[in-house]
Amino acid sequence: MHFSSDNWAGAHPRIAESLTRHASGFAAAYGTSDLDKKVEARFSEIFEREVAVFFVGTGTAANSLSMAAVARPGGVAFCHREAHLIADEGGAPEFLSQGIRLAGVDGALGKMDPQSLEAEIRRFPSEFVHAGQPMAVSISQSTEIGTVYEPGEIESIVEICRKHRLPLHMDGARFANAMAGLGMSPAEMSWRRGVDIMSFGATKNGCWCAEAVVVFDPDKAKELPFIRKRSAHLFSKSRFIAAQLEAYFEDDLWIEIAAHANDMANRLRQAITESDNARLAWDGQANEVFAIMTRDRFDALIEQGVQFYEWHTPHFASSLLGKGELITRLVTGFATTDQHVLRFADLLE
Amino acid sequence: MHFSSDNWAGAHPRIAESLTRHASGFAAAYGTSDLDKKVEARFSEIFEREVAVFFVGTGTAANSLSMAAVARPGGVAFCHREAHLIADEGGAPEFLSQGIRLAGVDGALGKMDPQSLEAEIRRFPSEFVHAGQPMAVSISQSTEIGTVYEPGEIESIVEICRKHRLPLHMDGARFANAMAGLGMSPAEMSWRRGVDIMSFGATKNGCWCAEAVVVFDPDKAKELPFIRKRSAHLFSKSRFIAAQLEAYFEDDLWIEIAAHANDMANRLRQAITESDNARLAWDGQANEVFAIMTRDRFDALIEQGVQFYEWHTPHFASSLLGKGELITRLVTGFATTDQHVLRFADLLE
Amino acid sequence: MHFSSDNWAGAHPRIAESLTRHASGFAAAYGTSDLDKKVEARFSEIFEREVAVFFVGTGTAANSLSMAAVARPGGVAFCHREAHLIADEGGAPEFLSQGIRLAGVDGALGKMDPQSLEAEIRRFPSEFVHAGQPMAVSISQSTEIGTVYEPGEIESIVEICRKHRLPLHMDGARFANAMAGLGMSPAEMSWRRGVDIMSFGATKNGCWCAEAVVVFDPDKAKELPFIRKRSAHLFSKSRFIAAQLEAYFEDDLWIEIAAHANDMANRLRQAITESDNARLAWDGQANEVFAIMTRDRFDALIEQGVQFYEWHTPHFASSLLGKGELITRLVTGFATTDQHVLRFADLLE
Amino acid sequence: MHFSSDNWAGAHPRIAESLTRHASGFAAAYGTSDLDKKVEARFSEIFEREVAVFFVGTGTAANSLSMAAVARPGGVAFCHREAHLIADEGGAPEFLSQGIRLAGVDGALGKMDPQSLEAEIRRFPSEFVHAGQPMAVSISQSTEIGTVYEPGEIESIVEICRKHRLPLHMDGARFANAMAGLGMSPAEMSWRRGVDIMSFGATKNGCWCAEAVVVFDPDKAKELPFIRKRSAHLFSKSRFIAAQLEAYFEDDLWIEIAAHANDMANRLRQAITESDNARLAWDGQANEVFAIMTRDRFDALIEQGVQFYEWHTPHFASSLLGKGELITRLVTGFATTDQHVLRFADLLE
Repeated sequence: MHFSSDNWAGAHPRIAESLTRHASGFAAAYGTSDLDKKVEARFSEIFEREVAVFFVGTGTAANSLSMAAVARPGGVAFCHREAHLIADEGGAPEFLSQGIRLAGVDGALGKMDPQSLEAEIRRFPSEFVHAGQPMAVSISQSTEIGTVYEPGEIESIVEICRKHRLPLHMDGARFANAMAGLGMSPAEMSWRRGVDIMSFGATKNGCWCAEAVVVFDPDKAKELPFIRKRSAHLFSKSRFIAAQLEAYFEDDLWIEIAAHANDMANRLRQAITESDNARLAWDGQANEVFAIMTRDRFDALIEQGVQFYEWHTPHFASSLLGKGELITRLVTGFATTDQHVLRFADLLE
Repeated sequence: MHFSSDNWAGAHPRIAESLTRHASGFAAAYGTSDLDKKVEARFSEIFEREVAVFFVGTGTAANSLSMAAVARPGGVAFCHREAHLIADEGGAPEFLSQGIRLAGVDGALGKMDPQSLEAEIRRFPSEFVHAGQPMAVSISQSTEIGTVYEPGEIESIVEICRKHRLPLHMDGARFANAMAGLGMSPAEMSWRRGVDIMSFGATKNGCWCAEAVVVFDPDKAKELPFIRKRSAHLFSKSRFIAAQLEAYFEDDLWIEIAAHANDMANRLRQAITESDNARLAWDGQANEVFAIMTRDRFDALIEQGVQFYEWHTPHFASSLLGKGELITRLVTGFATTDQHVLRFADLLE
Repeated sequence: MHFSSDNWAGAHPRIAESLTRHASGFAAAYGTSDLDKKVEARFSEIFEREVAVFFVGTGTAANSLSMAAVARPGGVAFCHREAHLIADEGGAPEFLSQGIRLAGVDGALGKMDPQSLEAEIRRFPSEFVHAGQPMAVSISQSTEIGTVYEPGEIESIVEICRKHRLPLHMDGARFANAMAGLGMSPAEMSWRRGVDIMSFGATKNGCWCAEAVVVFDPDKAKELPFIRKRSAHLFSKSRFIAAQLEAYFEDDLWIEIAAHANDMANRLRQAITESDNARLAWDGQANEVFAIMTRDRFDALIEQGVQFYEWHTPHFASSLLGKGELITRLVTGFATTDQHVLRFADLLE
Repeated sequence: MHFSSDNWAGAHPRIAESLTRHASGFAAAYGTSDLDKKVEARFSEIFEREVAVFFVGTGTAANSLSMAAVARPGGVAFCHREAHLIADEGGAPEFLSQGIRLAGVDGALGKMDPQSLEAEIRRFPSEFVHAGQPMAVSISQSTEIGTVYEPGEIESIVEICRKHRLPLHMDGARFANAMAGLGMSPAEMSWRRGVDIMSFGATKNGCWCAEAVVVFDPDKAKELPFIRKRSAHLFSKSRFIAAQLEAYFEDDLWIEIAAHANDMANRLRQAITESDNARLAWDGQANEVFAIMTRDRFDALIEQGVQFYEWHTPHFASSLLGKGELITRLVTGFATTDQHVLRFADLLE
């Protein structure tokens, strides 16, 4: 049973098949092929407006180049204190944005608290060079701990961004799972809500490696081709990313995969809720499940072949744990099956 | 007839097949899977010594992270004035190495002239901070214009490197073609000759996207995992690169492809030599062919469906052209066939 | 009455005089003059060992180049969460070190708590590229809030540094005040205690602009000339810094100034302690005094011509304030006189 | 006799005196004092329009921050191939501009040839990410070899800048000497001619260390406070720069010094012209004189106590030298006297 992460699976069969289909023949390099252009246009359809799209190979790149796109000298970007951006990118957002800084903002359930965000931004008064200058706000949808920002919550953040004239970035490494969890359209979850730029992730949702920076106002994307190239993230056979995304969008495969993963996560949540040997750390709406159990239980499950991780206790959750308990994370994906879930439920008892 | 570049083809069938085969199942992420480890070990076998290997997705990344690995403050790296590194990487080597500089060195046939290299290095006297400090030398094998450094030529460069205590980098975007052209082993063409670090390219030789930084003294590679991560070049499903390289090395597929591409190039060279309507700009040993023809002839061929590029006239070759003539480039690869070559030869007449 | 900061004063008369004295005549540029060399040698005498010294013009530069000198890819430096380095350098340490990160560590009285430091370092497990790698620890002596690390406290920090093989940096922007406060020698306060590299500040203690990076093991300073030059911090008429420092060290002027400033601060502390209208926020050993008073009182003093600042409440001190109260900072220096202090004491009553 | 460089002298007496005068008293730090503001306003008067001014301590900083102010991702700035920017700043312009590149342009007498500039810019076609994108043009006035751009020559450069929408930077390390040489006003030599941003140098013309970035359209200077701070170039006691510049501008001291230095240079030129033992390498209009002589003669003069340097032979001048000859440079400044020149003339005979 593999619940370690949604990047432990390989590629969905229909995506692998598309890659094979496009492996023959010749096409222009560096993102200028017909297939690249076709898939870029598909993004505009999906988001119901003209967008600028830049394929990259890693989620780290999508996040980092997004930051670079909105970077300012001495710039400070605000995100949740446990956001992937700040905690797991190895400093790439700062490095590829040439020394911007990330300021962590508190908030329960992996979501920035608007008041904390406002307070943090106020620590950087306009023209006070010693502290640096605010340059952007970033939210993750779904969040690092499997929750989602409700539309109203995004609006509270957007209001603060507007007041301080800061662009809003969305880390959409698990965008499809959030969409499926909320039952909302791509447009409703992004630019219609006030998002200016996003990291569109497909790797965790069934692709080998397919990510994109999406800029909702193409006029603001003029420098991105150079930002991508100088960071060495422009692929020569760029259409191998396009080929994955072509299948990804075909017949709404992406929604289908995300809904399946969320469904598997919901069944895990139910099994945990019904068990006496574990409990949910908090509820979730996407494909990550966080369970509290004793270390003994955790060790026993690992020994029985369940692959999942202990999770560092988020700041807001330190009071949730009893003695000898820890928080664990289980992640589902396109390759998770009913059998995996049932077997886990059995072993938990 | 596609002779535009070796990155216009997709992926070799056996490489595409390997990707499909590994698409199912689960495996550890971020380069820690069994397949990643197995293919890394394969590199040590192929190079006949223990090497440190870092998979990346683009040749630009391999070159830039190699430079970052040997970077020093105020550092200056020396390469041929028309090297890919200096002319076609969009500034990525400088950017990802945090502001190093590239100094172009003259030399005929795309190869650095040792005396010019020595003279250029001497422009940076030790401890003269105003100019910067030498940090590395980089050669391309095969070169940007389809030639190869003969063993003795590499040794002349190495001697200069040793004298100035500079590491030698090899841009091996077309390493297999050079090997096949020279009939030498990977070890003979690299560390046995004095190469310290190389960009090992497989994309142009039949992969979708598979490149690697190879460090011949693993002790000197300690920082590379962080250098790669901070540049956003660590793939989560890293094994999709490993899967390509597994097939690439299997049954010497890579040598087979390179030999085929070189063979196709040789036939093109022969056709051009035999034609009255074009002549070779210079001889070559790898999979790139450079022909001189009139612009009228070039335009006619383009109109007839031959896809190839006009090439900027290299510095050393300015006297080769007659009035109305230009230099063109034709590149062959795994997908080039006899028919392509024959048809081109026909059209040339 | 000027208590805004120790950088509001100009230059001590003997320092101004030295500048004038050296204004005539010719001398080699870029730090190679006899005077430069003489003052560099003076540092080795003062520190009782051979040290490498690099003059720069700002404290921000000294701190940032120190960080650059110990930087590693994906590197993370640890300092107090309210250290100047992290809070007031406008991102320069990160920018000039090419994207390193600063991790804030908790601790009372402006000093890192060793256990918190240990816990913070443990968040970056060896070879876990996603988090980055520890690269250095930095302490300020005296601290940002006028306290000093006692010898034993430095040793606790050093022990952690040794365990994790991390160099220890000291931000000595107010080094002389700390020395005078503790009655210790430069050597005792630095390398004999385990400090590897320091920012030696003289600007706040009577110079116009004179700071230095001091490296206690000169072998580790080989790259610093280039690090300084590439950051544009090498002065052509470098001897104008040397001239300041010559006078600074002459007849122990620097100790004299620091002792005077500390004495003035002690008198302020006494006046505050004796007053019913204010109280010390915490005790201090250097030239910064922090007083708690009501905002009304603060406003009244400002109106009466006392120049001093409200200070943001440090994290550890949030419980110290009553309703309507705030923390204020008063800084003394070479130009502070008895009259200033007495007048302040009068106005406070 | 000191003709090594104009940065071997110290400070002009009136500038040293101003520093001493302002050494006492208190004033706001970080460039916000009345004196800072007053001198900033003086720049607007001198340039006959409102300008934004940023004091820095080194010419390298002025040049590098100017580049940073106009930097674009993958950006390439064009300057003469022997410009200080490209040859003597230790990579600082690239480093502080986060990886931009400098492209060297040919041209006789230290001045870019407009046609060569146009040709070089054309090597970077719009949107061709592989090469990078043009971002600025930089000229030095006076040039690195003591010549000046005539108004018409600047206009030819400006025309090309306008066509390609590139800002024009002027490296004015010896701006006053050029002004005095041409007999033109600051405005005529800068923004009225089409210059957008300049490095205003005063150090070589009699100050200890006083340089400024001047932006002629203040609206385009909004990020510069942060660009300066993140590079650690904001001085706390910034008024020590302002104090130098106050005296510098008082009673046109700067013009007086520059005219004197030029006059001394002219006398040197005359002495060289009249001598049989040396000849002018080329004519000049500013305070640098370049003489051709035999190495024997050079060695003899050095032995006799003349301090001056051999100069690397500029690219355009390689045919000027006879066997055994070399090019030497003599620089004059505020401290050069008639006696120095006469003594040199004597020794030359």
